[in-house]
Amino acid sequence: MRILVKDMAEAAGQTTEVEAAGWVHRIRDMGAISFVILRDRSGLLQLVLGEGTPKPELTLESVIRVRGLPSLNEKAPGGVELKVNSLEILSRAAPDLPYQVNGDPSKTGLEAILDNRPLSLRNPRIRSIFKVQDTIIAAFVAYLRDRDFTGIKSSKLTAGTTEGGTNLFQVDYFDRKLYLAQSPQLYKEAAVAGGLERVFEIGPVYRAEKHDTPRHINEYVSLDVEMGFIESELELIELEKGLLAHIFEELARKNAADLEAWGASVPDSGAVARAPTVSYDDALKLVNEEQVRGTGRALSAASRIFDINPEAERLLCEWSLREHGVDLVFVNAFPRRYRPFYTYPLGGEGGGGGKTMSFDAIFRGLEITSGSRRLHDYDAFIEALPKFGLNPENMTGYARILKYGCPPHGGFAIGCERLTQKILGLANVKEASLFPRDRRRVEP
Amino acid sequence: MRILVKDMAEAAGQTTEVEAAGWVHRIRDMGAISFVILRDRSGLLQLVLGEGTPKPELTLESVIRVRGLPSLNEKAPGGVELKVNSLEILSRAAPDLPYQVNGDPSKTGLEAILDNRPLSLRNPRIRSIFKVQDTIIAAFVAYLRDRDFTGIKSSKLTAGTTEGGTNLFQVDYFDRKLYLAQSPQLYKEAAVAGGLERVFEIGPVYRAEKHDTPRHINEYVSLDVEMGFIESELELIELEKGLLAHIFEELARKNAADLEAWGASVPDSGAVARAPTVSYDDALKLVNEEQVRGTGRALSAASRIFDINPEAERLLCEWSLREHGVDLVFVNAFPRRYRPFYTYPLGGEGGGGGKTMSFDAIFRGLEITSGSRRLHDYDAFIEALPKFGLNPENMTGYARILKYGCPPHGGFAIGCERLTQKILGLANVKEASLFPRDRRRVEP
Repeated sequence: MRILVKDMAEAAGQTTEVEAAGWVHRIRDMGAISFVILRDRSGLLQLVLGEGTPKPELTLESVIRVRGLPSLNEKAPGGVELKVNSLEILSRAAPDLPYQVNGDPSKTGLEAILDNRPLSLRNPRIRSIFKVQDTIIAAFVAYLRDRDFTGIKSSKLTAGTTEGGTNLFQVDYFDRKLYLAQSPQLYKEAAVAGGLERVFEIGPVYRAEKHDTPRHINEYVSLDVEMGFIESELELIELEKGLLAHIFEELARKNAADLEAWGASVPDSGAVARAPTVSYDDALKLVNEEQVRGTGRALSAASRIFDINPEAERLLCEWSLREHGVDLVFVNAFPRRYRPFYTYPLGGEGGGGGKTMSFDAIFRGLEITSGSRRLHDYDAFIEALPKFGLNPENMTGYARILKYGCPPHGGFAIGCERLTQKILGLANVKEASLFPRDRRRVEP
Repeated sequence: MRILVKDMAEAAGQTTEVEAAGWVHRIRDMGAISFVILRDRSGLLQLVLGEGTPKPELTLESVIRVRGLPSLNEKAPGGVELKVNSLEILSRAAPDLPYQVNGDPSKTGLEAILDNRPLSLRNPRIRSIFKVQDTIIAAFVAYLRDRDFTGIKSSKLTAGTTEGGTNLFQVDYFDRKLYLAQSPQLYKEAAVAGGLERVFEIGPVYRAEKHDTPRHINEYVSLDVEMGFIESELELIELEKGLLAHIFEELARKNAADLEAWGASVPDSGAVARAPTVSYDDALKLVNEEQVRGTGRALSAASRIFDINPEAERLLCEWSLREHGVDLVFVNAFPRRYRPFYTYPLGGEGGGGGKTMSFDAIFRGLEITSGSRRLHDYDAFIEALPKFGLNPENMTGYARILKYGCPPHGGFAIGCERLTQKILGLANVKEASLFPRDRRRVEP
């Protein structure tokens, strides 16, 4: 019966053989004996081969099963080693490894990591990214289920679009054309209006955008939330604060070693609670004040920031960290022109001022969330469409959701890879995707 | 502050007003007063309108918010009613409801239910399908995380295919063609070989199959499992038994009312443990014996069953229910020609007999799972390809997973909608999909 490396120290000193299995992480051949580091999903274990026992030829990354006696050894990693009595090669690795698993991943380029994912993932530090990501998802789900949210699974194939007709991947679906969904927006709203009231969905979303930046991928995992019977986006911001605080707590509790591998830490709950909410207009003022503060000079017309662009996101977090002690800012009340047509106006349907009940969450200089209260009144919805250049005839499916009784509602989506990226301080969001897709990359 | 209908009985008799909100489920106009049944996500509540208070004109399915005093009333549903002091219409439903929410869903056709999902989902019985499905997913995940499995998210866009080149939906991906993944097979194996060892994934999968049967949809949710360091498919069958038993326990604990709404029950853990595993050859014998038993006549050549087809699945479960007291059968040792090329041969790589370490799970007469141990030896894999008419040049991505040290491994996938269907006894698997896609249906 195999035992995991992490449990080996407990077995040290016993007189019956134990079994371990995993990959050959490192080999140090001393002539008569060899020290081999075995790696399994739980850690690294020093094997001693050749003391009167077989010492077969091994290649790095071969999968082996060994039996032997564990004993404490201060000098071994984890403080325990296994004197091997028998060894079986379960899978011999070809010697021409295209990726050095036991090296420092910061010294290998992003393309090498992604090209060789089945190998690069074996590096414990790289693997920790996906342990962290799994905890993010688990904590997201647990927090919402505790609050009576129901998980849904909606179709990723849509006949139309909610976000406008561009940036869609087209699918040949029998004898017609469909599109890969850019978000589960319509389906979340249908489920809320369908009486579930509070729903979440975790699923892939698609953006056929050509840009190639460290913050974009063409297929990503969206952590979606939608909630009925709300008054404004402020309730959504409170919900997201609770969610993020819970995710951070769970990471600190379960993934301390993974965080440490990246020199990362997470804000505590008090810090998340202190995260400020500033209006779009105030955010722009703050950003330009930060620019003046940074340079010590009056702001030139050329350097003035007129939008919450990546530089503005960076400056807002800098400001928040200094003033509020937390690298997280919520920006709300975006002008209507910057938000999708279904966004609810500040001041109510027909409300003036041109602002909306919308928000972004910006964490460590990167937008990780976009959300809003939505139009729920059928007449207001139908009126809004032509103002956004949309044809009501193409929106009958959406309109039907509102026509027969739809509660006030809103929601948001967290980009799972972006949150992972910012928690661990990864340079590129693609590092937080197991099998990322971009304009050029379609494999593995 | 709104309270849910399910908590209203506790508030009965108190002298401060409470608030409830939801949909107008039923209206009984008695002249001076009206009884209105309010429906929220938690249940049904009788409202009393018009006793010296406003009695506005309401339409069915409008969303309202009311304030009033709750009192016990044996004749009201749930034993409590609310005398309404004030009422606000949050969203007025158009009177031309295309679906009768408060009716008996068994009297409305499947197409009407699916066409009008935002309305049909409001029917408590229909909504219970998706509460059950959410518990299935939650229990699946909890059971596996407890056993050190890591959740992964893989791409749904693939350049090639693992299952053969047919039945794929093609995607226009920038200047090239990709396909929607039929399963996360390759990615699960890459993650296992990548050192995670034990992984699960919940995500959409796509089959471009033209058939239209009560057991098929073209996009479904696959509950996928893959596990390293196994010896045979028997360990996978044990794992699935544990998983199913846990899912059923959680349903019995959390969704008793939902099960009752469908007159459904789930097997207990003892019954699941008793589920037999029979080889493919024995299963065929059993099926034909069942046919003889059913008709009482010798089997004609025309009616002999030569494959585990839907009729065979039904007969096997009939047999298992009678002989083992459980409507669940595992069939293993399928002939190689019926299984994908990557299936591991019974008797080892190069093993004779033409059988494989593979299995199906059949529950209540329907295949819900297919699984197997996989080829993990690079040379055996490369040798197998031409025997299945596959070109090794098109399989280099897959082969690379095995080339550099891959543990023996295997896995399976449970069709989430099929499991939901069979648990509740739904006539068509599409009822268990919120927004199903078939050859004709692409909306909502």
